[in-house]
Amino acid sequence: MVSEPKAVTRRRKLRDDLIAAGERAIAREGLRGLKARELAVEVGCAVGAIYNVFADLDDLVFAVNALTLEQLEKTLTAAGSAGADPGDPARALTHLAIAYMDYAATHTPRWRALFDHRLPEGRAVPAWYSANLHRLFAYIEQPLGKIAPKLVPAQRALLARTLFSAVHGIVLIGLEEKLQSIPLTVLREQATVMVAAIARGLAQE
Amino acid sequence: MVSEPKAVTRRRKLRDDLIAAGERAIAREGLRGLKARELAVEVGCAVGAIYNVFADLDDLVFAVNALTLEQLEKTLTAAGSAGADPGDPARALTHLAIAYMDYAATHTPRWRALFDHRLPEGRAVPAWYSANLHRLFAYIEQPLGKIAPKLVPAQRALLARTLFSAVHGIVLIGLEEKLQSIPLTVLREQATVMVAAIARGLAQE
Repeated sequence: MVSEPKAVTRRRKLRDDLIAAGERAIAREGLRGLKARELAVEVGCAVGAIYNVFADLDDLVFAVNALTLEQLEKTLTAAGSAGADPGDPARALTHLAIAYMDYAATHTPRWRALFDHRLPEGRAVPAWYSANLHRLFAYIEQPLGKIAPKLVPAQRALLARTLFSAVHGIVLIGLEEKLQSIPLTVLREQATVMVAAIARGLAQE
Repeated sequence: MVSEPKAVTRRRKLRDDLIAAGERAIAREGLRGLKARELAVEVGCAVGAIYNVFADLDDLVFAVNALTLEQLEKTLTAAGSAGADPGDPARALTHLAIAYMDYAATHTPRWRALFDHRLPEGRAVPAWYSANLHRLFAYIEQPLGKIAPKLVPAQRALLARTLFSAVHGIVLIGLEEKLQSIPLTVLREQATVMVAAIARGLAQE
């Protein structure tokens, strides 16, 4: 039988095409830009065919969000090597915060999709996606460990998530301009002041 | 003419009834719980009558959100007087952060409505609502001014908003359990550690 490998290839190609189309839609408009009918038109398949390769659209969103996490990780790696003074973990943290802010400002719809994605009741986040997500926190945990060497790993992991949440809040409210319209340069400065204060405060404890 | 004052009274009563019904709906389900048809049934008026007293549903949301800000302000005032040691502004800040977190955890749908409310393009937030909102920041600015007395008022105001955004991020991600499920007691502890570090770090600068 030669037809089976071909079917597998076709299936894989359809999957890749749908992810690429989903990525473009989410990059343009965020999650609300993702519509099965439009995806099907774009890749040239029947709407029903989407559900042969994805259990549902949530599965497709996870695939796209994983690509966003990859992009984000690249900017964090670049930020890490730009401020590559292993003796200055506070500076490493402010660089990471600014890199995160800049990513969110530049790729706002796909950044938002990471957080706007709500699963139906009872449906859990896939383990492979969680693993990708948690890997990103190592970038924060590493300098944090240098600043507060007394923290045991579990405390450090928790504090890294809290620090991320704090920076995320600054980025979120800053970009939404809910409180007031703040230019990105000022927002960067504010994030730097705040993260630097956190680093000093944690070091001092 | 005696009919005019009566019409005014009726109008005011309808407005109050709609705000009360809107408040109940938002307290139950957040913004998505607010539906013109259901409000009309609840207060016993025609759907069209809603638009005699509110320009649109956004106007009604602002009226309800203003009540939420009032509730929130009461908890912040209580937090302020509970930790009423004017010599310990860092403690005042952590108390405010915890009060904010507890309010959000207890009144999650109406707290969310403050941030979920998106206006149509070109429509601005009413000035009276902005004034109410900005008044809340005085609670943060005051201890912040004691911790960092060198800040000029504009810097202090900006930093208060950044500090609020950081705490908001911790509350938001904590309550959404996007990263991991964290008990409220641990979340409180994390917010305290973070805000205390910020206070120490800012004082040290």
